[in-house]
Formats: sequence, C-alpha cells, structure tokens
Amino acid sequence: MGSMISSADVVVTSPGRNYVLLRVTTEDGLVGWGDATLNGRELAVASYLRDHVVPLLVGRDAHRVEDTWQYLYRGAYWRRGPVTMAAIGAVDTALWDLKGKAAGLPVYQLLGGAVREGVYAYAHAFGWDHGELVASVDRRLAEGFRAVRVQFGVPGLDAVYGVHLGAAAYEPAGRGRGPLVERWAGAPYLRHAPGALAAIRDHVGPDVDLLHDVHHRLTPVEAARLAKDVEPIRLFWLEDVTPAENHHALDLVRQHSTTPLAIGETFTTIWDCQELLVRGSIDYIRAAVTHAGGLSHVRRIADLAALHGVRAAPHGPSDLSPINLAASLHLALSTHNVAIQEYMGHPGEAHEVFRTAYTYADGYLHPGDEPGLGVEVDLVAAERFPYEPAYLPVARTVDGTVWDW
Amino acid sequence: MGSMISSADVVVTSPGRNYVLLRVTTEDGLVGWGDATLNGRELAVASYLRDHVVPLLVGRDAHRVEDTWQYLYRGAYWRRGPVTMAAIGAVDTALWDLKGKAAGLPVYQLLGGAVREGVYAYAHAFGWDHGELVASVDRRLAEGFRAVRVQFGVPGLDAVYGVHLGAAAYEPAGRGRGPLVERWAGAPYLRHAPGALAAIRDHVGPDVDLLHDVHHRLTPVEAARLAKDVEPIRLFWLEDVTPAENHHALDLVRQHSTTPLAIGETFTTIWDCQELLVRGSIDYIRAAVTHAGGLSHVRRIADLAALHGVRAAPHGPSDLSPINLAASLHLALSTHNVAIQEYMGHPGEAHEVFRTAYTYADGYLHPGDEPGLGVEVDLVAAERFPYEPAYLPVARTVDGTVWDW
Amino acid sequence: MGSMISSADVVVTSPGRNYVLLRVTTEDGLVGWGDATLNGRELAVASYLRDHVVPLLVGRDAHRVEDTWQYLYRGAYWRRGPVTMAAIGAVDTALWDLKGKAAGLPVYQLLGGAVREGVYAYAHAFGWDHGELVASVDRRLAEGFRAVRVQFGVPGLDAVYGVHLGAAAYEPAGRGRGPLVERWAGAPYLRHAPGALAAIRDHVGPDVDLLHDVHHRLTPVEAARLAKDVEPIRLFWLEDVTPAENHHALDLVRQHSTTPLAIGETFTTIWDCQELLVRGSIDYIRAAVTHAGGLSHVRRIADLAALHGVRAAPHGPSDLSPINLAASLHLALSTHNVAIQEYMGHPGEAHEVFRTAYTYADGYLHPGDEPGLGVEVDLVAAERFPYEPAYLPVARTVDGTVWDW
Amino acid sequence: MGSMISSADVVVTSPGRNYVLLRVTTEDGLVGWGDATLNGRELAVASYLRDHVVPLLVGRDAHRVEDTWQYLYRGAYWRRGPVTMAAIGAVDTALWDLKGKAAGLPVYQLLGGAVREGVYAYAHAFGWDHGELVASVDRRLAEGFRAVRVQFGVPGLDAVYGVHLGAAAYEPAGRGRGPLVERWAGAPYLRHAPGALAAIRDHVGPDVDLLHDVHHRLTPVEAARLAKDVEPIRLFWLEDVTPAENHHALDLVRQHSTTPLAIGETFTTIWDCQELLVRGSIDYIRAAVTHAGGLSHVRRIADLAALHGVRAAPHGPSDLSPINLAASLHLALSTHNVAIQEYMGHPGEAHEVFRTAYTYADGYLHPGDEPGLGVEVDLVAAERFPYEPAYLPVARTVDGTVWDW
Repeated sequence: MGSMISSADVVVTSPGRNYVLLRVTTEDGLVGWGDATLNGRELAVASYLRDHVVPLLVGRDAHRVEDTWQYLYRGAYWRRGPVTMAAIGAVDTALWDLKGKAAGLPVYQLLGGAVREGVYAYAHAFGWDHGELVASVDRRLAEGFRAVRVQFGVPGLDAVYGVHLGAAAYEPAGRGRGPLVERWAGAPYLRHAPGALAAIRDHVGPDVDLLHDVHHRLTPVEAARLAKDVEPIRLFWLEDVTPAENHHALDLVRQHSTTPLAIGETFTTIWDCQELLVRGSIDYIRAAVTHAGGLSHVRRIADLAALHGVRAAPHGPSDLSPINLAASLHLALSTHNVAIQEYMGHPGEAHEVFRTAYTYADGYLHPGDEPGLGVEVDLVAAERFPYEPAYLPVARTVDGTVWDW
Repeated sequence: MGSMISSADVVVTSPGRNYVLLRVTTEDGLVGWGDATLNGRELAVASYLRDHVVPLLVGRDAHRVEDTWQYLYRGAYWRRGPVTMAAIGAVDTALWDLKGKAAGLPVYQLLGGAVREGVYAYAHAFGWDHGELVASVDRRLAEGFRAVRVQFGVPGLDAVYGVHLGAAAYEPAGRGRGPLVERWAGAPYLRHAPGALAAIRDHVGPDVDLLHDVHHRLTPVEAARLAKDVEPIRLFWLEDVTPAENHHALDLVRQHSTTPLAIGETFTTIWDCQELLVRGSIDYIRAAVTHAGGLSHVRRIADLAALHGVRAAPHGPSDLSPINLAASLHLALSTHNVAIQEYMGHPGEAHEVFRTAYTYADGYLHPGDEPGLGVEVDLVAAERFPYEPAYLPVARTVDGTVWDW
Repeated sequence: MGSMISSADVVVTSPGRNYVLLRVTTEDGLVGWGDATLNGRELAVASYLRDHVVPLLVGRDAHRVEDTWQYLYRGAYWRRGPVTMAAIGAVDTALWDLKGKAAGLPVYQLLGGAVREGVYAYAHAFGWDHGELVASVDRRLAEGFRAVRVQFGVPGLDAVYGVHLGAAAYEPAGRGRGPLVERWAGAPYLRHAPGALAAIRDHVGPDVDLLHDVHHRLTPVEAARLAKDVEPIRLFWLEDVTPAENHHALDLVRQHSTTPLAIGETFTTIWDCQELLVRGSIDYIRAAVTHAGGLSHVRRIADLAALHGVRAAPHGPSDLSPINLAASLHLALSTHNVAIQEYMGHPGEAHEVFRTAYTYADGYLHPGDEPGLGVEVDLVAAERFPYEPAYLPVARTVDGTVWDW
Repeated sequence: MGSMISSADVVVTSPGRNYVLLRVTTEDGLVGWGDATLNGRELAVASYLRDHVVPLLVGRDAHRVEDTWQYLYRGAYWRRGPVTMAAIGAVDTALWDLKGKAAGLPVYQLLGGAVREGVYAYAHAFGWDHGELVASVDRRLAEGFRAVRVQFGVPGLDAVYGVHLGAAAYEPAGRGRGPLVERWAGAPYLRHAPGALAAIRDHVGPDVDLLHDVHHRLTPVEAARLAKDVEPIRLFWLEDVTPAENHHALDLVRQHSTTPLAIGETFTTIWDCQELLVRGSIDYIRAAVTHAGGLSHVRRIADLAALHGVRAAPHGPSDLSPINLAASLHLALSTHNVAIQEYMGHPGEAHEVFRTAYTYADGYLHPGDEPGLGVEVDLVAAERFPYEPAYLPVARTVDGTVWDW
C-alpha cells in the first residue's frame, strides 16, 4: 500500500512560543503531523520521541494507528504521565493525519463524521479590575463569542492566573531563566471572586455563557464554598477548583453546590479520569488530545464520560500548537458528547509557521474539509524561530510555601 | 461530496435460513450493506426499517455515521431492545461499509487499522454421546481450529442446546408453524457436564481451547456449582451460565470459581453490559455487531470492557448473515481487546447470495482488504430464497414450566 | 373449556393518531383486546405480533396468561426493548380482558379487588406564557382535577416538550415525512422554569398537586440544580429529569434536593427499574402497561417498588390507546402502591372507535365494572381511519447536536 | 551556609547497561548523587533534567529538600508519570545525599535512624527447566539468601520474563535497534506455574521465602486462578499479577486466595497507590525510590501503606543504578514497614563506575555508615561507557496482539 513509514522527525520551533512537532513521512510521500508540546518541559518530549520512539516508527505500517498506540504505550513499560503521553499523542495524531490523507478525507470523517454544524468555542477575557475585564469581555463578544472565560485581579494578590498586566493576550509562560513566583492566598480570592463574577453576569446578561478557571488553587472546603457562593451566577463551568490528584476533594464541592465543574487538562490517561467520571463528580472532562495520548485515547475518554452524562471539552490553549487544535476540532465535530472547545488563538508568528484549514466564525470553530487534519507546517519558517527556554509560573503563599499554580 | 443517501431498501432472503438485509445507496452510486437479522423475529425488524427508518435515511449524508446513530437512537424515544438495536445496527453497518468504499479502504482501516494478523476463531462441535462428540471435535481440529465449542447430549434430557440429532450442522431454528419444545432439567445436566467436558479435555490434550455454552439454563447456585466443578478442565470460557438479566447471579458464580465467564449475545446496548463490566463479573463480552447497534456501539462496549480487563468476543453464529460476520471481523482485527470470533459458517445456499472477502485459514479469520466490509449481495439470487417463518425452540421443565432456552 | 384461542388479529387504526391493537378471540366467542401502540414505530410492533406472535397464539388456552407471558418473553430469546415488550404487553392485556369476560368480572377484581374508591388522576396543562398557562390550569381545575402537570414555554427556545402553540390539546407526534427538529438549550430552561412553576403555585395555592415533566433534557448537574431550585414549590413530582439509561445521574439530583422524582415511561421491563428502585433513587415509577409487558409484568414492577417505598404511576398519555388506559386503571384500582394516573384523554375521533367503561369525575378515574377491561372497539369505525406515518420530534442543540427529546 | 547549589550535571553512562545520574554540587564543594535511570527511555529523563530542571537548581539552597520537591512537582504543572518523577526523584535523592554529607551522617540517620539491624533481601533465581532453576536457587541459598524470587521457562512459550537462556544474569533490555518481541499465552503459563513453584518449594523446604513475578501478564480471572492454585505453596508474595492500571482486577484475585500480593514497580506517585492501599487490595507496595519521586515521596507511600497493614518493598533491579539501591537501603533501614529489598546486583562493569558503601551478608543488606548515601561515582570510568540505546522487550500474543510485557 505504500503506507510504510519512511522517516519521522521532531521539529522544535518557537514562533512566539515553543512548540514540539512530529512529522511522519510514508514511503509514498504522505506527511502526517502531530503535536508534542508540553509547556515548560518541551525538550524532554522531543528527546522521548527522537531518541526512543522515532527509531521504532520507521518501517512500521502507518495505517496501524491502534497497534502503534498499544505498542508505544504497553511497550514503554513505564507508562502514563505527561512526557510519555504527549509523545504517544504526537504519534497517534500524525498517524490519523496520514490516514485521512490516504483516504482523501478530513479526519473527522474517519471518526464517524460530523455530529454538529460547528464546534462551540469559548474565548479568554481578563482584566485586572472590573473595567478592564468588561472591556476584554466586550471585545470577545464583538468577535462573536457567546462563551467567555473570565479571569480577574484580586485585591491583595499581586498576580492571578489568567490575567496579564497590561497585555493584549494572556501568556503565562515566561521566557528566561526560571519561573516567575506568584503569591497566592485563598481568603481574598474567595471574598472577591463571587462579586467579580456577579458583576460580569450583570454586564453581559443571562445569555452569555461565563466560565471561570480557579487553576487548582483552592483547598477542598474553599472550593466548596466558592462553588456554592457562585451558584446564583449560573456559570457554564467552574474549572480546576482543586488540585486534580485528589479526586475526593470534588465530592465535597459537589455536596455543596450544583455549579457545573470542569477538570482534567493535566490528565494524561483515562485512568486519571476514571474515578471522577464513574462517580459523577464532574460535568466536563478536559483532557487534551496532545497530552492524553492523541485522538485514539481521548476519544475513549469522551466515550467513558458519555456513559456518565459528562461532556468532553478538550483543553486547547495557545501553549498547544495549531496541530493540537485542529485534531481537537476534528474530534469535537465528530464526537457526540463534546460540549465546547477552548480557543485562545496563537501568537502572530505562529501563523508564519502553520497554515490551518480550521475556521472561526460567529462563536463557532470548524476543522475544515481538507484531507487529514488540515494543517501544513512551513519548515523554513519554523527554523526562523529557534527554541527559547520558558517556564510556567510557580505559586507561593505569603509565608513562602509552594502552592499549586 | 455525492454522499447523500438516495435510497435504502430492505431485503429479506432465506438461503437456508432467514436473513434481513439493509441496502443503502448514495447518489454517487456507492452501495452499503447492513445486517438486520433477528432470528425468529425477522419481519419486525424489516418493518422497523422499512416503515420507520428508511424514510428518515433518504436525503441524509451517508458520511454522518455517528449523527445518524444518535438520531435513530435518541430520536426513536423508545430505546433499546433487539428490534430497535438491530435496525440501528443495520444502518450503522451499512454506513461504515459506505464510508470504507468512499475512502477506498477496508473498514478495519477506518477503525484504527489492524492490531493483529488474524482473528482467532472458534468452531462448534457437538455430539449426542462422547463418540459423536469426539468425531465432531476431530473434524474441527482437522479443519485447523484450535478453539472449539463443545456441546453434548445429557442422559435424561431428550434435547440440549447446541446438539442436533443426526445432522451435520447445528441449526436450532425450526421452520414451520411454531417453536419446538425442549425439556430441561438442571440436575442431570450438572451431573453429566463436568465428566463430558473432562473426557474431551483428555481427548484433545491441554493445548486446544475448549469452550462450552450453557445457554442461560442454570439457576445461580447451579451455575456456581458447574463453574466450580469444571475448573480443573481449564475451559477457555463457560458461556451464558444464567439468564442474562440477573447480573447478580454471576457474583455467586465468581465467588466459587475462577472459570472464565462469557455472556452477552442477547445484550443490545452498553447499558445492558455496564454493571457486569464495571463489577468485573465476566471475562468475555459477547454483544453482536448487528444486535447491539452496529460497529459504532459495539466498539464502545469493547472499550468499556477493556478498562476492566474484559475482552470482547462478538456473537457470530449462522443466524446472523455474512454481513454481520464481515463487520465483526473488521472490528476484531482493529480492536485491541477482541479475543476470539465465533465462526459457525453459513448454509450452502447462503454462498449463492453472499460473496465475501473474508477468509479462513488455520484457525484464523481475516476480513480481507476490499474497500468497505467486503461483502456483495446477489439480489437475483436473494429473490430465489423467499422468507420462511422459523422459530427458535422453547424450553420447559418436566412439569411443563417454561424455562429459559 | 372453550377458552382456546381461535384467532388473533392486529388492527391498525388512526382516529386522530395511530393505534395498534390486538384482538384475541376464543373458540367460545369471547374477544379480548390489547394495546400495542408504540408511538412512531407502530408498524414494527404490528409486524412483531402479526408475523411472529399471532401464529403462536392460535390454539393456546386463553386462560394461561402467565404461561403465555413466559412463553413469549423467554421463548423470543431476544428479550426486552419497546417493540418486544409492547407486543407481549398487548397479548397479556388481551388475555386479562378475556379472563375477566370469562369470569364475568372486571379485571381489577381478578387482580385482587379495589383497594381504593377511585384512581387519583392528573391532567396536562400548558401555555406558552404565564397567562396561557394559567388559563389552561384553570380549565383543568374547573374540570375537577386537583393534580395538574404544567408545561410552559421558555424564552429563548422556540419549542418545548408539552406545549403546543395555539392548540387545544398537546400532541407531539407530527404526521408527515419525518420528525420535527426542536432546538434545545438547558440554560434558558433552568433560568425560567423555577419562576414559571412558582407563579403557578402562587396562582393555585398549596392544595393543588403540581407536576412537571422535564422530558429527559437535562444533564445530571442541571437536573440537580432544577430539583433544588424548585424545592420550595413543593411539586408532587418532577419527571424524567435526565435520560433514563444513566441511573447514577439521579444520585446527584437526590443529593441536592427532596423534590420527589418520577421516571420510567420508557422502561420496558423490571430490569430497567431494578437499580433505581433498590437504590431508592426515585419516588414514582412510571412504566406503562402496554410498553412494559402488560398487566402481569407492571404489577411486578409495582411490587418491587413497594418494597422500597416507591409508588407506581403508570404512563398514560394519548399516544397509548384507551385500552391501555383501561388496563392501567384496573391495575391502579387494585394495586396498593399505585399513586396516581396520567390522564390526557384521547382525540375526538378516537371516541368513534373506542367505547370505554371507565369514568372520570371530580379528579378521579374509575375503570368501571364491566367484565374484562370494559373497552369495545368498533372495527368498522377503525377502518375509516387508516394508518398515517407520524414521528415524535427530535431535539438538537443550537450547534446541531442530537439531544434527548 | 555554603549550601547553595553551584552546579548540577547529568551523567549518562553505560557500564554494562545504561544509567542516568544527576550530580549536584554545592558552593562548599559537597557533591550529591541521584539516580534518574528509566530503562529504555533514559535520554528523555536526561533532557528533562538537563534542559528544564538543572537551570532551576543552581542557586537554590541544597538543604531545602522538601521545598525543592514541591517546587519541581507542583511547579512543573504537568505532573506524574515516569519521566517527570524519575527526574524529581534524582534531585531529591541527590539533596538527601548532600544533607547527609553536610551532617556527617548516613542518610538513614536523617530519616529517623535504624529500626532494624539489616535489610532482608531477596535474590533472583531462574532456569529454563526445573534442573536449571534448582541450580540457580541453590546458588542463591549458598550465597546466604533466605528469600529467592524464582522464574522459570514455560513449555509452549519461547521466552518468559525473568529467564535468560544460557546466561548467568537476567537482563531483559536488549541493545540494538528495537525491542525484542516475545510471544505470550496465558494458558500454558497457568498450567505450568503451580507445578514449577511447588517443585521448588519441595526442594527448598518450608523455611525459604519464595517469591514469583508474573510481570503484568494475566487477565483478572487468570490471575485469580493462579493465586488460588499456588496458595498451598505459601509464597512470600506473588508479584504484578495483572496490569497495574486496573486496580479492581486485584479484587477478584483477593476473593479467591490468601496468597500475598505485591505490585507497584511502575507506580510513580502516591496517587497511583492510593486506591490499592486504602482498599486493602495488596500486601506489598513496590514503588521505587528513583521512579516514584525520591526518598521524600516513597517515604510517604510507605507511611500510607502502614496505615493499611501493607508493607513496602521497593523495586530495585539492576536497571536502576547503585545510587538507587543505596537510597532504597537507607529508607529500608529506617522505615518501620519496609519488609524486604530486591537485590539483583549490577553488571561487573558497573563496579568500575560506582563505589558503594552498602554491604551484603547472610541474606541481609546494610547501607553502610558513610555520610550521605555512601556511593561514589568515578566520572572518568563513566566516560568509558557511552550510552547505547536499548529497549525492554514487547509482548505479543500468537495472533500478533500487543500484550503487556
């Protein structure tokens, strides 16, 4: 069939931010792309692929997507975790891209075809104070979004997740020698957040879907209090209220509110989600295509979620490449219980490297109808943007204790 | 794209036994086939399709496999059950056949590609007494099978599931006015079965996989006793030990033995399997492609099973058409946790109607590499075999009580 | 004995809407009627009966109601589901009708005799806005009902279950080529419903029993929120808050409110109810006589419910024939833990076909005291109303995703 | 204090097999060593450390072991998994080594001091047939071991975990271009293992502790059968009977036997162990110091295990460096509920690179009393052994399906 893999290459490029890409070529000349970006730990995934996985790919049948997944997952012996699963995710995504191209069909057709006309998208709005936030939200609404994630400054805290002082776009990863340290305290946040959110609800009226991301900062009881306090605001979801390892924390949150809960952007396998899904502890599962082993595995996560009335909403910020976003959109268009897609866009320079078939209009995204994923990478342009080390911030409380960022 | 469905037709044909088929045609002339056979209730599914589903298919995009599944399942309002799910299964299978043809790929490639070289198959052997059974088993082994389901007569019972007096092939459904009545008693069966199975184990040695089907006949405690008594025989599986509605019955069986348990040929949705899978009560789940809503749904059942260390082994007797077997083989070749495929063959006349790409050799089946499912139906030949009513038998105990057949 | 069944016929008639009826005649000339209507899939049940069941009935002893039930349920091999169980339900109901006629007694006497003076009934009221709804409720109160199910329009949605724009009676099934598509969104419904219900509570005062049907539309957490928000309104029940396959969804609802919950109109066997009843997840079980296998089986569902403090309230809308309503009333009059009967009446033309003994007065129904069920069918009139295909609507969210209708 | 970290270096060396080491130097000239070896994925961890962690270490206070652990774990944002946790484990181990050296004390003293005189050790014995295995066991007993893990060939399988044909020491990782593929089948293993183990029990008598490692190969029911069948042999433990992601599989094993169960060498955080420990599903938890985040984290795993009557027995094969073994011994000597230490030794060339203070005598290990961990690395020697890619094998069943190796 000519579908034997003839080469596989890792591309590290930094058009505005760092991306790690996998290019898989078959002997008949088809090229498939996967995203392997792990923000702040990029080169470890690049090494995992280049040094340990690429030698196993050459000579394999590119059509054997599932066998390759099992081979890499079980064959690694040491399983799970972000580095391993991002590497496997990149391979899986590239092979689906290749299969779509071999079939002459967009990937969403291979996944069962479109189940909706477009993928509902939410944008990110932020402002240090209410005025800035209102302005940011209004810009998003003017762009056509009907779902907006709102993040705001908190009196008493000098930095908050999702808010960039004086910047047009939010970018948490800082280039340079080490992570920024942000101070954290739960009490001022708990006092301020309900009012800040209520003010935005008042501003936008009832018909805009509002989301808010707590970013793993709260203790279980703090999270329960917040979820309860914001119940009247009718959020679309409240995200990552507690650190995601402790699944039982969400039981307490559930007990005290009916605020919809989203979690999972740091999950890398279905095993990380299973208990939460089976126990009905959450409403949206946010495992990302790249980080959770690719389309093959995230589809299984979505299916398990569906059994429990949970909808998928894959993580898709700017720190995953347009290849991830494309894959996520193919999944979202074809998977019944995907609810919404995060859409933060990408840095301007990224558009010099990536040509994408996906489109945005009036609050909805669509993966486009090109064969495969519909993303092309300009390797010459990619070379113009060499890797620059960057780190996500670290949080500490006022006494200096490391906290979850 | 030319993928709009232009017509859909139900074909009822009886080459040796009754089959209900669905033919879906797109405006660009591609033809997809699905199986809708429900042994003994064939015409109800034919009506469900012809009178209620076909009018909804014409004009739809054939590529929208998942949307069509959801539309038919949720849109029916009255869900589940064999008639409904066989009808949906036929549509789903036909649309995957079409999608494969549109992509120029065998369906297994759309499902992720081959994860194995061939599909391990088991054959059916039967004999009223040990001598007949040995002869039947030996014929199967001579055909290359290394896995054989063995069914045998029981002193004191005049009929037993899986054993046809004086026939070359087993066929439980009797043509004519109504079901045969077979007498059933648990005690003679429990006394006889372990010895009969042990004798076959002695005959074939340790390396042949032996399976046995109890066909829903036992009470919970009878099933527990049998599973315990046959433990030394090391069956590949013991199938359908109790009626499948009562999931808790299997807990008792589990408690008393480590004999591997298979169940599920009568299940029609994942909801019928969920508890058994999640509780770890079984080892093999046998939901059939046709009866459990098609490839889209059975794949989900297999995925849920995989999470719990359970393997799929789709039902595939002669009372489902070669289209079902082909679909099952595409699924089995591409789904990691499929363990084995039932292979009973089809009546000789069926080969006048169906041309199939799948092959059998040395104990393994392969779906072949034709685009789609690889089954063609000769409509002229199909017309030569008009429907003849037939019924599966009914069981009664000696006092006349209806029992599970 | 003269109780041998001499013929059985399926009657499909459409006086205002489609009904499928089964007429069973014994050699001594008694006629028993059963209802086999499955809204939107009528002809599949008609085929199931005519092609596969009727041949088994002729020559059987009509007195053997239970044996026939077991024979058809276990003998079908492929069990459960709406088509199968509606067919069995029709046979079972017809045989009880015959037994009553043979005994010269109304069926409720055979079921143990009356345990109450009459069957508490609820009516359906609807209005697009508060004014219309109030008018509708007032009409129901004026008719003597003290229990009213209230359904209302929702700003932002152009169609809602239970509300017919500009119509005197609600009828969801649309005649014509395919299902209507209704748009669904949970957020506007959740915002509007509590206020709409509270306004009706204010209007009718505390002594009227108010019911509301969500019709499977909500996610688990949405359902929990609604049940919590309407707690002060003291509903008689909140019905079908989530899709009925996911039983665990109701645990979340339970956790957040003491609003009584009803579910089960789509259940077809006791196995569909078992977990909900045993876990105490609901307060009312709504399996219908026709769809859940007839009087013999629904009585068993009610008995299991009684063990767990749950009361039965069989589904009884206009899309089941007056035969079903009559059977339901005989059950309700004689079964200790039946709480209430849905009573939506039937189209005017239906009264040309059906003559019923049951009566309504002052908020209560009574099955009457004619032998059997007390329903006669005018076959000549029935022929005047030929079958017209009709479908229940399908729901999609605004992005086009199929949703539960 | 002079405890500021002045440099950190990653050393990759391959004296007989690949090792990844981390050397941390403080400004006062102390050197601490950590092991970061991840068999088959070594360079990904090296990159994780070199590219992303080392820049964060320089300038930090080496005494802040716990703060550094939290900083690297929470600050990575993308947590868990073998690459991440091996990197953190290397840092943690190196800082404990430094702290010991700064205090002039062996690390076990900092961990609370010795709770036992020596650390009970088990050795690995293997043989393709009984004769070879007996010889191997006898050699171990002659070396003074009273606890021996026995692994043996299985008729019908051409390779088995833990057995190296014609070799003096077992080494699964093969140098060269890709993993070896080993065939797997459960049935012959299940038939052979109980007898093989019983024969060894007969040979050694009741006073030798026998262990056996199934290495994740069995399905749940197969594992249950094996654990039941070997019960009379009174194993010290049965290890890794099923793939470790599916915790519920062990429930079935537990139900059928009292054979002690060990698992966990692939676990990388306490979150991977939590359910198994809390549910009491196992008897020994085998998380390794290197792979599970270092001494700081494995000590916490042991503490949680203690709560549930489970003892720790850290993984310590030759594919982790002598640094890991030293750390494991300091932990074992000072942690109340450590039961036993795996001791497979290291290749001869490794002794040219590593000088170790730990000692073995009469079946017991002792970490020695040098300050810190008591391991010195000869960097000149290390350079003589450049990295050579090597992979652990991959298992496939006879039909070609990837299986857990």
